[in-house]
Amino acid sequence: MKPTNSKDASHGQPSIVHRRIVALAGGVGGAKLAHGLAQILPPEDLTVIVNTGDDFEHLGMYICPDLDTVCYTLAGLANPETGWGRVNESWNTLANIEKLGGPNWFSLGDQDIATHLERTRRMKEGQSLTQVTRDFCKAWGVKHTVLPMSDSPVRTLVETDEGELAFQEYFVHRHCEPQVKGFRFDGVQVAEPAPGVREAIDSAEAILICPSNPWVSVDPILRVIQKINKPVVAVSPIIGGQTVKGPAAKMYRELGIEPSALAVANHYRTLLSGFVLDTVDSSLSDKIETKTLVTNTLMNTFDDRALLAANVLNFAGSL
Amino acid sequence: MKPTNSKDASHGQPSIVHRRIVALAGGVGGAKLAHGLAQILPPEDLTVIVNTGDDFEHLGMYICPDLDTVCYTLAGLANPETGWGRVNESWNTLANIEKLGGPNWFSLGDQDIATHLERTRRMKEGQSLTQVTRDFCKAWGVKHTVLPMSDSPVRTLVETDEGELAFQEYFVHRHCEPQVKGFRFDGVQVAEPAPGVREAIDSAEAILICPSNPWVSVDPILRVIQKINKPVVAVSPIIGGQTVKGPAAKMYRELGIEPSALAVANHYRTLLSGFVLDTVDSSLSDKIETKTLVTNTLMNTFDDRALLAANVLNFAGSL
Repeated sequence: MKPTNSKDASHGQPSIVHRRIVALAGGVGGAKLAHGLAQILPPEDLTVIVNTGDDFEHLGMYICPDLDTVCYTLAGLANPETGWGRVNESWNTLANIEKLGGPNWFSLGDQDIATHLERTRRMKEGQSLTQVTRDFCKAWGVKHTVLPMSDSPVRTLVETDEGELAFQEYFVHRHCEPQVKGFRFDGVQVAEPAPGVREAIDSAEAILICPSNPWVSVDPILRVIQKINKPVVAVSPIIGGQTVKGPAAKMYRELGIEPSALAVANHYRTLLSGFVLDTVDSSLSDKIETKTLVTNTLMNTFDDRALLAANVLNFAGSL
Repeated sequence: MKPTNSKDASHGQPSIVHRRIVALAGGVGGAKLAHGLAQILPPEDLTVIVNTGDDFEHLGMYICPDLDTVCYTLAGLANPETGWGRVNESWNTLANIEKLGGPNWFSLGDQDIATHLERTRRMKEGQSLTQVTRDFCKAWGVKHTVLPMSDSPVRTLVETDEGELAFQEYFVHRHCEPQVKGFRFDGVQVAEPAPGVREAIDSAEAILICPSNPWVSVDPILRVIQKINKPVVAVSPIIGGQTVKGPAAKMYRELGIEPSALAVANHYRTLLSGFVLDTVDSSLSDKIETKTLVTNTLMNTFDDRALLAANVLNFAGSL
């Protein structure tokens, strides 16, 4: 289809953006676009639904990497260099765990550990992940709604040439080295959407799929929420055949699919009302079987995030 | 009995100190004398058996306050100002737990948290507290043997005018404010001495009771090890009717006993071959029904620790 040319909305005061939006997000890329949306939309008009398939227990703590990345980013607490973890972080606990011969493969800063310890404490007391996330957002000054996709455990397992690996084992411990053959989302059949997820989708004017990994960040969310009877717009996480961050391109390749914005659009083809791809991929636009917006999708600065968000919102409004 | 006058052994090269010793220790006071002993005795001649009645679970972590204080002190890692916790400590995790509305009444530094997280991880894997303590001592460069009194949980409960309180609840959270009526050591009937405890006592020439709280630091150890068929020498934690640190004097008072070195000697009376009290309490020496050593027992400096240790060792050797 013909691309809609990006008309850059002026940052902070875009023209047609006041619509109720649900954003589906994984980690760093999703958090960046969510942050852009949060710069534009008032709190009541944005709900971010976050993947929890990457969650795991480590050193006795319940860790939610994507949820934390999204919340830290919206709170302005994220490390701007890595995209994950906390800004001005210290690493004294991890250094001492290492001295004791403990596991050091998962980077845990001292401030970040507070999140995991207190979340674990509350969940052991019986609080739901939704409730804990709401309280933490309040404490951190996050005004927009952030919801885990589910309060029930869903665990992403990566089928590889070395057997099935827990996601963080594959992703962090093994640096995505094993060859991917497929994915399994343990618990997804019985996991209900978290309280508020269904309502947010039902009252949204559009659902935005953030530039997160389609296989392991977005698919688990889509599997949990199942039915989406709203216009869906996805932003490609693949730019010029590569990912800004993470193993999505490598996964496509190992699964026998040429990684590209086109592959991402095909991935979501049954859902899409619109697709956003980068200007470097403009030549692919004609091959995509839905309306497209070709624009700059790299988010290097906070302004880039807001600008992409405004453009995506305007595009979604035009569908 | 007549006091033996303290003949100050020259620090580091005392004359008659090469004897195999078991020291029973609680927290800060016990750790200081243990450190003094460790400065004098070779590793094979000193075993420190530490109270675990204060252990508790907090924020999902298994915390052993006395064991950590003794190990940190022997390793030279203890905060010299507080006596507990780590030197050059940072507090970023606790500050962030506080921001999230989590419990902040128990001081947990970032380095210290590493100890608790890694210990908890190992114990959940099935390792014993003895094994974990041995590994941690090795990692920290502690050459003398440190043993928990037992690998089985013993929990000190304080009977107060407000009901029974878990020890840390009474001690840290409530600042020892509730009036003490008695103590209970939950689990002590079935708790076996940790591996090595019995052997260390059987091969020791003398057992030293460090200047720790008789009620809540030493009694739990004595209850677990039960039979001591060796000369026992205790060092009074009460100097001039007061404790250097902790609630021992307050406890004696609330239990209707005038706090004094004499009260401590009476506390241990069935066990003692010798008793060490401070020079400020020399007038009490005649009232104590065992041999006494009157000497300076305040340990302000590392040298004070070694000097007291040397004097106590010489005194024990003279009995």
